[in-house]
Amino acid sequence: MPTYRLVIAYDGSGFSGWARQDDQRTVQGELEKALLTLLGAGVDLAVAGRTDAGVHARGQVASFQHREEVDTEKLRRSLNGLVGPEVAVMDLTVADEDFHARFSAKWRRYRYLIDPGPAPDPLARHYAWHVRRRLDFAAMAGVAEAFVGEHDFSSFCRSVEGRSNVRRVEEAEWLSRDGFYEFWIKANAFCHQMVRSLVGYCYDVGRGFADPSQVSEVIEAGDRALVSTVAPPHGLTLWEVGY
Amino acid sequence: MPTYRLVIAYDGSGFSGWARQDDQRTVQGELEKALLTLLGAGVDLAVAGRTDAGVHARGQVASFQHREEVDTEKLRRSLNGLVGPEVAVMDLTVADEDFHARFSAKWRRYRYLIDPGPAPDPLARHYAWHVRRRLDFAAMAGVAEAFVGEHDFSSFCRSVEGRSNVRRVEEAEWLSRDGFYEFWIKANAFCHQMVRSLVGYCYDVGRGFADPSQVSEVIEAGDRALVSTVAPPHGLTLWEVGY
Repeated sequence: MPTYRLVIAYDGSGFSGWARQDDQRTVQGELEKALLTLLGAGVDLAVAGRTDAGVHARGQVASFQHREEVDTEKLRRSLNGLVGPEVAVMDLTVADEDFHARFSAKWRRYRYLIDPGPAPDPLARHYAWHVRRRLDFAAMAGVAEAFVGEHDFSSFCRSVEGRSNVRRVEEAEWLSRDGFYEFWIKANAFCHQMVRSLVGYCYDVGRGFADPSQVSEVIEAGDRALVSTVAPPHGLTLWEVGY
Repeated sequence: MPTYRLVIAYDGSGFSGWARQDDQRTVQGELEKALLTLLGAGVDLAVAGRTDAGVHARGQVASFQHREEVDTEKLRRSLNGLVGPEVAVMDLTVADEDFHARFSAKWRRYRYLIDPGPAPDPLARHYAWHVRRRLDFAAMAGVAEAFVGEHDFSSFCRSVEGRSNVRRVEEAEWLSRDGFYEFWIKANAFCHQMVRSLVGYCYDVGRGFADPSQVSEVIEAGDRALVSTVAPPHGLTLWEVGY
C-alpha cells in the first residue's frame, strides 16, 4: 500500500492546533476532510509535530497510506485549492512504504520569535510575541547553552503520567536579527509545551525574574513548579523536520 | 512652533493607502483622527512616502507642527492605543523646527517580496506576491543593475502632467534569500507606481516575456506603453527613509 509524504506550512492563528478534535477547526481535520473529498476514502494522517492551538508551521511533515496510486502533483494542487490560503501543501511525494512522519523523524527544529520593539510590529504581529519589558539579551543567550544535551525536561513539560521527558537537544541559541530576538532549537523530539516553557524561562531570566546562574539546577530539579511562564503560542513556528 | 517627527510601521492590507480620502480608511486619516482626539487640535501630517492602497511600511516617516509642547512618549503610547495593531508609531520625537518629512528626506528604500514557492506561503501571504511561473532569477538580477543611476523613469511611472519623472536610483538589486526573491531599491525619490512597475518589468523578464538585453532602450524610451505589468501592492514595503 503506497505511503504518501506531505510537507505542510500553515498559519496557526485560526486553528485549534494540528490534532483533529470534534467541533474544532484543526489543521489535521481540514486536511483529512479535503483528502476524503479528493480520494473518496478516509485517511489517517501521522504527523511529525502535534502543534498546539495558535502555533505555526513552515516545514511540518505528515504521512498517510492509501491503497491507490495517485498523481501526486495533481493531488497537491487540488488539496491547496481546498485548504488554502491558511494551509499550504508545499510537497507531496510517494515515500518508502515503511515511512511514518512521526516515528521516522530524527529531529525537529522550532523557531520562537520575540518582538522587543517599542510597539508591536504590525507586519509581524501574528508571528512574534511582543514584549514590553526591556530584556537582558546576553543573559537569555547564556542560559540557552545549558539546554543543549540529553536532559530530563520535566521542569519544562506538561507531563503525561508514565511517559519519559528525557530529550536530546542538539542546538539551542538566541539570535538578535532584524530587530527581533529569534530562539532556535533542534532536538530529537519535544515534550508538550517544551519550547514555549524554555522561552518563558528565558524571558524570566531576561527580565530579571529568574537567576541565570541557577539554570542547571532548574533543569536537574525536574520540577514543573519552578518554571511559571509559558510563552504564548503565536510566536512559535515548527520550522523543519529531519529524517 | 514645535515640529514633531514620527516613525511609523503599518500593515497596509486594510487601508486605502496613506493619503487621507473622504469615506476611505487610510493610514493618514486614522492617525490624524487619533491626534485630533489626543491633542484637541487638528494637524496636517506631511509624509516621506505616499504609499498606495495595500502597500506596507516599516519605517515610514511623518511630521506635523503643533503649537504646544507635549510629552512625546506619552503621546506615542496613547496614539498606539488608538491606531494599533495595524499601525504602530515606533518613535515620536521633537525635530528641528524646519524639519519636513517629505521635503527634508534625502532617500527612500523599498523592498518588494516575491514568493516563488510551490504554493503561497501562509505566513507570508499578506506580504509577498506569489508567482506561479518559474522565473529566471539571474536575468531579473541582471536588469536591476541597469536601473541604477539618474534616469527619466517615465516608462515606469503613472505620469502627472508637467512633472518630471527624473529620479536618481542609488541601489537596485535582487536577492534570493530564505526561499523568497527580494528586490531592494534606494533612490532620492520615486514617482507613482515606480517600484511596482520596475518589479513588473523584472517579472516579465523573468518569465521570458521581455528581452533583458533591451532594458536600457526601455528606460531611454520614456514610454509607459512599453511596460505593461505592474506588480500587486501587497508585496511592497516602504522600508526606510534617510535624512
